[in-house]
Amino acid sequence: MKKKPARRTRDSESAKAHLLRAATEEFAAFGIAGARIDRIGAAANVNKAQIYTYFGNKDRLFDIVLDTQVARLLDEVPLTPEDLPGYAARLFDFLMKNPQPLRLANWNRMERTGGRADPPGLAASVRKKRKAIAQAQTSGQLSTRFTAEDLLAFTTALVTSWDVNPNNLRQHREAIVDAVRLLTG
Amino acid sequence: MKKKPARRTRDSESAKAHLLRAATEEFAAFGIAGARIDRIGAAANVNKAQIYTYFGNKDRLFDIVLDTQVARLLDEVPLTPEDLPGYAARLFDFLMKNPQPLRLANWNRMERTGGRADPPGLAASVRKKRKAIAQAQTSGQLSTRFTAEDLLAFTTALVTSWDVNPNNLRQHREAIVDAVRLLTG
Repeated sequence: MKKKPARRTRDSESAKAHLLRAATEEFAAFGIAGARIDRIGAAANVNKAQIYTYFGNKDRLFDIVLDTQVARLLDEVPLTPEDLPGYAARLFDFLMKNPQPLRLANWNRMERTGGRADPPGLAASVRKKRKAIAQAQTSGQLSTRFTAEDLLAFTTALVTSWDVNPNNLRQHREAIVDAVRLLTG
Repeated sequence: MKKKPARRTRDSESAKAHLLRAATEEFAAFGIAGARIDRIGAAANVNKAQIYTYFGNKDRLFDIVLDTQVARLLDEVPLTPEDLPGYAARLFDFLMKNPQPLRLANWNRMERTGGRADPPGLAASVRKKRKAIAQAQTSGQLSTRFTAEDLLAFTTALVTSWDVNPNNLRQHREAIVDAVRLLTG
């Protein structure tokens, strides 16, 4: 296969990176149905047809955006199954500063009710985390009171619980860590 | 003031009830931005202009729909602060059969990020529940390890935690009850 000139490849990679950033903002704010491809194109200075050439359709673009954020989250907040309270604290801190991954995952859950499978990166991330928890349970580092599936679901649920009073974040964070400690102790 | 003929009032009440049912379906499925007033009208056999006359705008209609479901939930699954694990079990059972209140509350949280206040019924329901939990704590029926605010948020979060395996509901329900027991014990 003939290689494209380096300059052109670089430009196209840069355009794709711009697009992904703009798409992340747009999908996080408005969801899948609410996102507008024209707005993403305008924000990234790329025309609409080019977006479809790069990323296929809107659903495909959403999957790529969500999986990119999931990968970033796995990388920046690695699961520490032997210390789930500490993981909860770090996940809380990360999501307070970066709400986009959670918003994207919420839209995915709310809007894809027709049995469409989760994007591959998200599904793999959940499997990987469950497996790590199950292994820590097998090796005796973690209580087996709850299944790995429930423990992961509960930890995530506590970290992302609603109605956080913004004046009360420090106390709320301590309460989450304490709650996860109770579930894992 | 002159009273309307009884027949006409009855018809209008019936049309409103039809509309509310159709609007509940539509908002639960598609959210606030995604809901279409024409579809609601078509489903309820009422014209669009009449909907605006009855309920004002789309946001007002959503508030009424959500608050109606919140009232129903308060009525059918009363909070029992002295028995939060039992409350969690009943709330889980109700939401498994009736996912609409949770979906509506989720849309409200996801789509109203501009600081718009929660609909009055939802806000009052949260206040009422927090107060009941705080009172149970004051009277010694409930541990004070967590604040009333956190305890309510955590209980709701555990009940509505993600990724429920539909083949595993009975076990998952027991795990929720057990988790809430740990937090309240």
